Amino acid sequence: METEIHFRTATEEDLSSIVAMLADDVLGKERECYEDPLPLSYIKAFQAIVSDSNNELVVACYGNKVIGVEQITFTPYLTHQGGWRATIEGVRTLASVRGSGVGTQLINWAIQRAKERDCHVIQLTTDKKRPNALRFYERLGFKATHEGLKLKLDK
Amino acid sequence: METEIHFRTATEEDLSSIVAMLADDVLGKERECYEDPLPLSYIKAFQAIVSDSNNELVVACYGNKVIGVEQITFTPYLTHQGGWRATIEGVRTLASVRGSGVGTQLINWAIQRAKERDCHVIQLTTDKKRPNALRFYERLGFKATHEGLKLKLDK
Repeated sequence: METEIHFRTATEEDLSSIVAMLADDVLGKERECYEDPLPLSYIKAFQAIVSDSNNELVVACYGNKVIGVEQITFTPYLTHQGGWRATIEGVRTLASVRGSGVGTQLINWAIQRAKERDCHVIQLTTDKKRPNALRFYERLGFKATHEGLKLKLDK
Repeated sequence: METEIHFRTATEEDLSSIVAMLADDVLGKERECYEDPLPLSYIKAFQAIVSDSNNELVVACYGNKVIGVEQITFTPYLTHQGGWRATIEGVRTLASVRGSGVGTQLINWAIQRAKERDCHVIQLTTDKKRPNALRFYERLGFKATHEGLKLKLDK
């Protein structure tokens, strides 16, 4: 019997697996903190995400195992005659499944959800330090028409 | 008696002035529809924005006149140890006041709000067709560290 990848909304029980993926990343290892118990800040952020109807945290699973994650934010804007947009952030897959198409399935899942939510565009930013990620998104049809600018804020 | 620029949350009475600014723009004129009465899609988007506690539509006013607009979205993420981010979108100023510093004041206002909301970063994307806008944001301290990718969705 073949086990297929399926997608569902993340639950708090998935949080440890998700943070492990965020931390097992060339940029994430510098800024995440994967320990047991998890820092409270992750739990508070998780609760803020799942209690907001315009945010969805999605996991890809193979059987019971979480092998991928992404967050989709739906935002109403006045521009484009009052069009909604979907923004993808925090896409990660388990190191052992990279290159197997899970990332592509995650993005296609987000595109489908964005259409269901009547968005006219789906967007994301990718760090210029990740050239492979840029090529990955371009292969899926995304166009790098914009510059993505950030300003870090002192706490 | 000097009249100063002040900032406040937009009301539905401001909507016509806002859409006029969105339409009076090199890219906006191709995609917006400023007419009386306004298309219902703008009114529905406005209501969705103001009823969402994680979205703020801000206008800059000179006396009673609306001279600038921006939207700020606050989003909780798991990344960066569960950090909130602020995203700025739809920044426009009245053509007659461009170059007078209103845009800078709008962005500084958004930065202040992002700090009040405990965001660790404030971000935006700007169309590569707007080189002046890129320089404007870089002068304010933003770094173009990311590529901004979009995929248009068929309705």
